[in-house]
Amino acid sequence: MLRLYDSRMSGNAWKVRILLNQLGQPYERITLDLAKGEQLTPQFQQLNRFCRVPVLQLDDGRTVVESGAILLHLAEGSRYLPDDPWLRSQVTGWLSFEQGDLQKPLALCRVYHLKGITEQMAAQIEQFHNEGYLALARLEQWLVQHTWLVGDHYTVADLGLFAYVSLASQGGFDMHRFTAIGQWLERVKNQPGWVELLPAG
Amino acid sequence: MLRLYDSRMSGNAWKVRILLNQLGQPYERITLDLAKGEQLTPQFQQLNRFCRVPVLQLDDGRTVVESGAILLHLAEGSRYLPDDPWLRSQVTGWLSFEQGDLQKPLALCRVYHLKGITEQMAAQIEQFHNEGYLALARLEQWLVQHTWLVGDHYTVADLGLFAYVSLASQGGFDMHRFTAIGQWLERVKNQPGWVELLPAG
Repeated sequence: MLRLYDSRMSGNAWKVRILLNQLGQPYERITLDLAKGEQLTPQFQQLNRFCRVPVLQLDDGRTVVESGAILLHLAEGSRYLPDDPWLRSQVTGWLSFEQGDLQKPLALCRVYHLKGITEQMAAQIEQFHNEGYLALARLEQWLVQHTWLVGDHYTVADLGLFAYVSLASQGGFDMHRFTAIGQWLERVKNQPGWVELLPAG
Repeated sequence: MLRLYDSRMSGNAWKVRILLNQLGQPYERITLDLAKGEQLTPQFQQLNRFCRVPVLQLDDGRTVVESGAILLHLAEGSRYLPDDPWLRSQVTGWLSFEQGDLQKPLALCRVYHLKGITEQMAAQIEQFHNEGYLALARLEQWLVQHTWLVGDHYTVADLGLFAYVSLASQGGFDMHRFTAIGQWLERVKNQPGWVELLPAG
């Protein structure tokens, strides 16, 4: 059986849980406590050279790391990843934009807020807000004219961007500025098989 | 004919020029002057919603954006991208790590040095050096034990990480700390069809 190493708060792991559920793919879940550094042990480093979640472990023990790579791997052959080469290139382009431009500013501002360290991190938060708002504006501009990120239906591109964008307000981003993003988030949540983020526990 | 929109200094565009040459693929090159904001015009935004280079334009006018997505698209069916699904997932995992962890700290420190604004940007450079050294250490650890990033030969994963890592010293990174990375950079440069970065011009 597939095994997913995740954590309760990780948006990157959340994406994978949603897709596994949408694919009807059974899996075992191992939830790490990142505050205890469980992702930094030598044993875990054997599973992921980058020492973070999510990690998908296949039946034969081999692992796939990085959320975008896991989504693409799992979605292969399903309705969630187009076969057409050009459409596929658009999916990987959006997933790259998410990891390069959106994920870090949105995720780290959220961490600073959840940890209650916004005062110490004020300069960093200001910089991440500038970066994050720029990336969100690019996304909004696309969604004003398109229902989905790629082609005419929901794909792993939408799922890849959904997680941290939907959590951005937890990092102090004013998401009321982005009407088209708000409507798109609702469309993603309404996809069959969508599941909530794990409770903080 | 394929058309590549690039810039002289972009490491992301350099990757694509190397691969096009390695594939023996003829293309037309349109080199933008980013200092003049040529990537911010409405016309260029029609080609790339993210307003940056590289952009690959296909014969029919459609575009592929984001360097990792362009590499994967061009390499399809070639020796530079494995067919095996798991090996392919490792390629996309490394390309995701590059965009999420390596590219920004390495590229922006290089920009600050090239523009001669390291004093004003000292705090930002310190933070980027911390991030960049951590990512470089993960890469070094892998390369101490492996010749290539994925499988037993050169792939677009190597090419994807090569560009900004090979330019990191221009951003003040002390690359003498990373012996295995240095040897791997030489192996990549020695691949048939490899080409130099464009001169500053």
